[in-house]
Amino acid sequence: MDAALRLASEHRCFGGTVSYYRHDSAVCGGEMRFSVYVPPQAQAGKVPVLYFLSGLTCTEETFQIKAGAHRLAAELGLMLVVPDTSPRDTGIPNENADWEVGTAAGFYVDATQQPWASRFRMFSYVIGELPGLIGKHFPARMDREGIFGHSMGGHGALVCALRQPGRYRSVSAFAPICAPMRVPWGQKAFRTYFGADTEAWKQWDSTELIRSARTRLPPLLVDQGTRDKFLVEQLKPELLREACDQAGQPLTLRSQDGYDHGYYFVSTFMADHLRHHAAALTA
Amino acid sequence: MDAALRLASEHRCFGGTVSYYRHDSAVCGGEMRFSVYVPPQAQAGKVPVLYFLSGLTCTEETFQIKAGAHRLAAELGLMLVVPDTSPRDTGIPNENADWEVGTAAGFYVDATQQPWASRFRMFSYVIGELPGLIGKHFPARMDREGIFGHSMGGHGALVCALRQPGRYRSVSAFAPICAPMRVPWGQKAFRTYFGADTEAWKQWDSTELIRSARTRLPPLLVDQGTRDKFLVEQLKPELLREACDQAGQPLTLRSQDGYDHGYYFVSTFMADHLRHHAAALTA
Repeated sequence: MDAALRLASEHRCFGGTVSYYRHDSAVCGGEMRFSVYVPPQAQAGKVPVLYFLSGLTCTEETFQIKAGAHRLAAELGLMLVVPDTSPRDTGIPNENADWEVGTAAGFYVDATQQPWASRFRMFSYVIGELPGLIGKHFPARMDREGIFGHSMGGHGALVCALRQPGRYRSVSAFAPICAPMRVPWGQKAFRTYFGADTEAWKQWDSTELIRSARTRLPPLLVDQGTRDKFLVEQLKPELLREACDQAGQPLTLRSQDGYDHGYYFVSTFMADHLRHHAAALTA
Repeated sequence: MDAALRLASEHRCFGGTVSYYRHDSAVCGGEMRFSVYVPPQAQAGKVPVLYFLSGLTCTEETFQIKAGAHRLAAELGLMLVVPDTSPRDTGIPNENADWEVGTAAGFYVDATQQPWASRFRMFSYVIGELPGLIGKHFPARMDREGIFGHSMGGHGALVCALRQPGRYRSVSAFAPICAPMRVPWGQKAFRTYFGADTEAWKQWDSTELIRSARTRLPPLLVDQGTRDKFLVEQLKPELLREACDQAGQPLTLRSQDGYDHGYYFVSTFMADHLRHHAAALTA
């Protein structure tokens, strides 16, 4: 292990290892944290990499303790990489004052407004610096990347994929914020990170990106619970469906009866998502 | 739902429901909390009940979010019932001062020493009042009960079973405190809850109970990680093995290479334990 990565803890899990790391991020200008599940197949050779982007208030630990993903990732031979949801302890005033913006609410964008612009660069971190570390320090097949996420992180996964067509072989989301420009969570975050000019917001809105895209992504899998308390006001999967229909973007959008927004929902459909990714990543 | 149970939250999960309850406990003299996973099979009829007793610092939520048990419980048709690890907010001086005794450290015993004796009665709660509520309010086959647990709760599961031979059809444990009388965790708790007379401690020590038992329990399944930091000082599975060997108690004690004490370990072997219980409970 390179001194650049500081191992915080590691835990044997389903024949592989869940590990937590900290490092000094050049992109985010300070310490960042992430977690990795390395499946048992990595002892014999490099394995595909699947990134999971978490939602508001989460950390790099949430997915690893709540999602129930390790059993099947160990069976399918997938490495699971989970970044934290923002830089922390940046010294930016009021960074912790609001759970919808600032700490744990990085929205996987590169902020352009100060004081955020120098630290809140989660998009560049997730697509650049983090994969660089993974490729350097872990037995990862960097030509086989997939990405998925939950809520704010579902938005993040879609935007990361839409802004880099051809990069990720597989994409999916649980209860994503489908049209951040049009909902309170996204509007507050985008105003904070990009300022008032909504024209600049479009390049960070998956529905807008799908509309303007010249190429198609691999078929998207999206699950949404019907009893999710954020469904109507914040998530709006109907706008994602509309955009995909208009653009000819393949989408499987599943409405899951009675499920809410949390990890009881995410864990229930985790196996379907892991198989969706494995079909593309391990083929 | 009887007014006696207050539903705190419920979540759809693998076709069933995880629910959290609070109620006024007669046995513990104040509010108690528990969680229940009701599998989908319960829509068609009563299902067996499997109790999980958690370890130090845990709550009734820990197992439900970290153990990854719902997928297979839904497949096998098992109800999972998880009590909190102690009464809380009892007003007993210093109840929160030490993580090894008091709040979240009830040890599943009935304390005899004041000020604990009036409230810390987790044994009677787990074997009596809680099952009474389950049988009354849930679609549970009360003639089909199994019990398991982790660490302090592994001790609890063994002691509950050993003190009521014939009651539980299946018993297992993850990294249990096998001989509380002989280790610091148990000694501190037993001194606090029972006083200095160590003779009285024997009826709460699974190794002692196995030695003195006149009847055998069903075959025990116990998993223990080799990299568990509490293994040598606090858990001592070799004493459980010795007692079982001497008493002719069937025991499968598995040493799991490289695993630690946490839920990454528990979740890895959860399926084996659920199948162990289902074999006895659903036969």
